[in-house]
Amino acid sequence: MTKIKYLLDESAMPTAWYNIAADLPTPAPAVLHPGTGQPIGPADLAPLFPMALIMQEVSTERSIEIPEEVQQIYRQWRPTPLYRARRLEQALDTPAKIYYKYEGASPAGSHKPNTAVAQAYYNKQEGVKRLVTETGAGQWGSSLAFAGALFGLEVLVYMVRVSYHQKPYRRALMEVYGARVVASPSEETASGRAVLAAHPDSTGSLGIAISEAVEVAVQREDTKYALGSVLSHVLLHQTVIGIESIAQLEQAGDYPDVVIGSAGGGSNFAGIAFPFIGAKLRGERNVRVVAVEPAACPSMTKGKYAYDFGDTAHLTPLTKMYTLGNSFVPSGIHAGGLRYHGMAPMVSHLLDLGQIEPIAVQQLETFAAGMQFARSEGIIPAPESNHAVAGAIREALRCKEEGVSQTILFNLSGHGHFDMQAYTDYQAGKLKDFEYSDEEVAAALADLPKVG
Amino acid sequence: MTKIKYLLDESAMPTAWYNIAADLPTPAPAVLHPGTGQPIGPADLAPLFPMALIMQEVSTERSIEIPEEVQQIYRQWRPTPLYRARRLEQALDTPAKIYYKYEGASPAGSHKPNTAVAQAYYNKQEGVKRLVTETGAGQWGSSLAFAGALFGLEVLVYMVRVSYHQKPYRRALMEVYGARVVASPSEETASGRAVLAAHPDSTGSLGIAISEAVEVAVQREDTKYALGSVLSHVLLHQTVIGIESIAQLEQAGDYPDVVIGSAGGGSNFAGIAFPFIGAKLRGERNVRVVAVEPAACPSMTKGKYAYDFGDTAHLTPLTKMYTLGNSFVPSGIHAGGLRYHGMAPMVSHLLDLGQIEPIAVQQLETFAAGMQFARSEGIIPAPESNHAVAGAIREALRCKEEGVSQTILFNLSGHGHFDMQAYTDYQAGKLKDFEYSDEEVAAALADLPKVG
Repeated sequence: MTKIKYLLDESAMPTAWYNIAADLPTPAPAVLHPGTGQPIGPADLAPLFPMALIMQEVSTERSIEIPEEVQQIYRQWRPTPLYRARRLEQALDTPAKIYYKYEGASPAGSHKPNTAVAQAYYNKQEGVKRLVTETGAGQWGSSLAFAGALFGLEVLVYMVRVSYHQKPYRRALMEVYGARVVASPSEETASGRAVLAAHPDSTGSLGIAISEAVEVAVQREDTKYALGSVLSHVLLHQTVIGIESIAQLEQAGDYPDVVIGSAGGGSNFAGIAFPFIGAKLRGERNVRVVAVEPAACPSMTKGKYAYDFGDTAHLTPLTKMYTLGNSFVPSGIHAGGLRYHGMAPMVSHLLDLGQIEPIAVQQLETFAAGMQFARSEGIIPAPESNHAVAGAIREALRCKEEGVSQTILFNLSGHGHFDMQAYTDYQAGKLKDFEYSDEEVAAALADLPKVG
Repeated sequence: MTKIKYLLDESAMPTAWYNIAADLPTPAPAVLHPGTGQPIGPADLAPLFPMALIMQEVSTERSIEIPEEVQQIYRQWRPTPLYRARRLEQALDTPAKIYYKYEGASPAGSHKPNTAVAQAYYNKQEGVKRLVTETGAGQWGSSLAFAGALFGLEVLVYMVRVSYHQKPYRRALMEVYGARVVASPSEETASGRAVLAAHPDSTGSLGIAISEAVEVAVQREDTKYALGSVLSHVLLHQTVIGIESIAQLEQAGDYPDVVIGSAGGGSNFAGIAFPFIGAKLRGERNVRVVAVEPAACPSMTKGKYAYDFGDTAHLTPLTKMYTLGNSFVPSGIHAGGLRYHGMAPMVSHLLDLGQIEPIAVQQLETFAAGMQFARSEGIIPAPESNHAVAGAIREALRCKEEGVSQTILFNLSGHGHFDMQAYTDYQAGKLKDFEYSDEEVAAALADLPKVG
């Protein structure tokens, strides 16, 4: 019997999240108040988030306990399987061992429920009745809708208009779970109306949708905002991915030479990578960590490490991150979940510390990788996840060239069942590569807020 | 910790399929040659199927070994999880225990790969280069496409025209796996051209698509036909579902009072039910077995137990089954996988023996059940699987009414990620119930072939 699947008994499921803040050689830069330019405190965030999440955002405890009720829900699909991609290895004729952690096994089909369930839980605990959020490709929105259904919370989702129309089935999924979905920019908020007044045909962006959601969240006491990536507490909740992977690779008697994740806001990447980076920071094990971003939204490879807003209407605090500028509108590539102008501050900090190798990959390479993966492994990856697949294939081919048998681990963050139009377009030769010139990036970076 | 998931270690995966023919009190009626009216022998089927599958079709061995190579592929997603639907139980406020076996965990998203992989394996073993099949909703076609990709077999799928246009994403899935998909009726076959000549706007049917696939399969030595349900070897391959369920329920210290499956051609139903019916036939354990069919295609509840063709062009042998007549065209309900005029001969025989309780459920009840399931359990069932969900909810509510805590097991045969349009239509109030009058059924039954 050739082993291809590594399961963990649910009794071995992590009971705590891993907080990388505990192992940093230098703390991440402070979050600043946009008005005063001074570091913000927990109270400043209270209109947006429940206090438990705010405290996680600033915690430096290494281990943060997962509440029993959250664990109970996780157990439906966690621990997720770790697979050895033996058929892909064969197709590539590589001496490398390729493992992938499959987060598409969750009910919503991606890693996002790891944080959605936790966020819904803490909000429920603090008496919140309604959660408001934004979604691009819809993976986050559907995950929060799922979590809301479990905890009896109302969920309102501002969905980037272009996705709202191009991905009616992702919207349908949210509605089956009971969420209300509004195309953004909308007439329901001042931010939305302002955009529509200037650009009546606006197809929206994550930055705009965040502005709308934040605006609505602060209007009612019983309503909070929920974010699916970028913030440290969101990344924290995703670390179950990496913690489980370490235990599963132990079963296989292996440890990765390289860990790979696709990176948009940074949460699935952090989920798999942080536990490994932590071990490296603590001097226990060495590892290379590769973050794969789209060439069409190259925040890490072409952006600037600077303070910026998280949204276009400048309603959020200022965080230091690799950014293309909050006014940057990424090309309409199919990996909608990776089209965000900035990178998570914690990922950015680790990149600045030299702990992460960022690479940018073109759209056509990612789809070619996804097709090869699907035909070998049977699972159709989400377009976002195809970036990690492409990164893994690059590493496997490098191993072949160098004649070395290294161990590659990547995060297959979600399935592509709601993204089949993208595969159809790819096969019909309708997809294109995109690259921004240095001038275009410089122009977008010109209006970064002045800080300090 | 409240247990909701029962996994089996892969070492506990079944290594043999269960053949119910070994436990029948009387053998199933013979398959007849349409020309002679005489029982057919293995040689008559050789143009269509590899000999290994033909021998399985007629075997009376209780246990048929699963080839190691097939086991190896099964192990990617098998044993599939068995869940206790505690949140659904709560929502229904029922004293019943509801378990569901989740076959949507396979790469193609349904139970169909259980037989697709086995069929591809045996065909490959016997030197076949190309498989031809038909598909309605697309679950079978995508599963065969997946299996073909793994074994390097060309796959050609005749897809019922209405589904070809209504379900472009299911078609895209087949194409990602490398299959060629043709809308049926097509101009590529004599059967297809005959239908189009008579009905240029024909939206197709499974019966027509089967005719086209069979016609193409017999034309070339290197090509065989593959069927996704109905035949006994197909049902045999699905018995891993029930065998695993028994082991998983043992873990839970439980045995079902009632086992429920949705029934179209009969394969997912047989997969979960036959191992339990076998135990009953051997006098080991008692159990009720409920087969849920759509009211819009009521072969078991309104059809006749008679010899009939499997296709409209009368290219198949004659089998005795509960049938609505091969010319019956079921209403366009969204559970396309259940729209077949006949029921598997082996299921029909067991029904005739009084081993199965058939019920017919209306479309709106099935979608209401699916929505309630999705909001409690997070998984979006396929429209076909919603029939089993509806059956389970009926039983759970009966238990509540009677105040008894029975154990209910049903097969959640697939997820509905490619069927979201159906959920959107349901929520928009666009779906309807259908029921055939006795006159309509009698008319369709009037032209059954005369046998014996």
